[in-house]
Amino acid sequence: MHEARLTLYELAGADLELRFSPHCWKTRMALAHKGLVARCLPWHFTEKSRIAFTGLETVPVLEDRNTAIGDSWQIAQHLEQSYPDRPSLFGPAAALPLTAFVNQWVDATLLPAMARILLLDIHRLLIPEDQTYFRASREARFGATLEDIVAPVADNLHHLRQSLAPLRRQLRSQPYLAGATPAYADYCVFGLFMWARCTSSREVLTADDPIDAWRNRLLDAFGGMARSATRPFLPCVGGDDGR
Amino acid sequence: MHEARLTLYELAGADLELRFSPHCWKTRMALAHKGLVARCLPWHFTEKSRIAFTGLETVPVLEDRNTAIGDSWQIAQHLEQSYPDRPSLFGPAAALPLTAFVNQWVDATLLPAMARILLLDIHRLLIPEDQTYFRASREARFGATLEDIVAPVADNLHHLRQSLAPLRRQLRSQPYLAGATPAYADYCVFGLFMWARCTSSREVLTADDPIDAWRNRLLDAFGGMARSATRPFLPCVGGDDGR
Repeated sequence: MHEARLTLYELAGADLELRFSPHCWKTRMALAHKGLVARCLPWHFTEKSRIAFTGLETVPVLEDRNTAIGDSWQIAQHLEQSYPDRPSLFGPAAALPLTAFVNQWVDATLLPAMARILLLDIHRLLIPEDQTYFRASREARFGATLEDIVAPVADNLHHLRQSLAPLRRQLRSQPYLAGATPAYADYCVFGLFMWARCTSSREVLTADDPIDAWRNRLLDAFGGMARSATRPFLPCVGGDDGR
Repeated sequence: MHEARLTLYELAGADLELRFSPHCWKTRMALAHKGLVARCLPWHFTEKSRIAFTGLETVPVLEDRNTAIGDSWQIAQHLEQSYPDRPSLFGPAAALPLTAFVNQWVDATLLPAMARILLLDIHRLLIPEDQTYFRASREARFGATLEDIVAPVADNLHHLRQSLAPLRRQLRSQPYLAGATPAYADYCVFGLFMWARCTSSREVLTADDPIDAWRNRLLDAFGGMARSATRPFLPCVGGDDGR
């Protein structure tokens, strides 16, 4: 049952059930945190005309009654302001700028590191028109072919795991990045892990990484919403840990 | 005039006025934020016996009446709890875990990146006994000689500037990392810039980096306390910007 007034446009693969965008996952978790259920519509990179009414070119886009809001950070602000009686995404106002900083850390540092692992897996899951768009835009951004970007697998994994060091240290002393309970700062990072989970058979964490326990707690949150998300059909690959 | 009950042990160079430790600068800024003035004693790496009464092996160490507290993060907690009527270092309780995360980001990501630029400059400023200790411990930690660590200057600067991307993005929309006014999260990062300023003639930011304006604001804070800190005598080097 969704609330008729809320519609979320989410990036989808050729399999329309496959919703893998890290930014859309930030919004999914934020809606769940607020106890809100939206009608979630699949959207492809090349369907810009379908969201043209919003003036935006990328998703997530949230329609809330007569308003369209784009950008996952702006959507989180909107939800916090429009649903003040629901559980807070940020805690007191003083925590908002620091949550913004965590989001910047995720987007500037972790997202490019994770992209170097996933780009070719993502490409494989898109509709043909999106594949053309995705390859051209990402190869321009990274200055290399998708194949060359993902080729140094061990280096790319090492770099991601190193980049996660601040989270790993934080989780030594508390169960969530934001403290005793999860908040939007956690969802910002978790979105990246959903991006990996919903596109790739590769396990990005080592088996003994304390971040794994945190990820499991968030996979289980909200009735296991994230854990039950559609994942691509992935052939077994030798050496994979079968996650 | 210091308050007789507060004593801060700070790392010093061969020039005892030279106080450059990033962690000690976190504490200096925290004391100033609280409007507290401590008696600041110079300490060298190899003077472990002088702080043995604390059970600690590194500085900062703060003595507050009959208590000795080590570790800059623990000192910040102590100041917040012991001086609740002074300006808060963290804002509401919900901001504390997020400030801890910023501190983890600084120590796990920025500090090693900055160290690769400064290690040899620091070594030059120490007393001979500390030079031996410093070279052995840092070469073991980084797995290379000090000279080899700092040799790829351009790469090291590029890596540091890239690592600062989350701060740069954050400062697009607000004057301080923590929001409209500075807080301990800002001082955690600023300590690294004081480390550079008090040990090296190298300018680590490019001239057009928006982080520079933020650094200037903090250099000017508390009556210009940080700007007036002793810097080493550094010979003019061609190509340096003369900072």
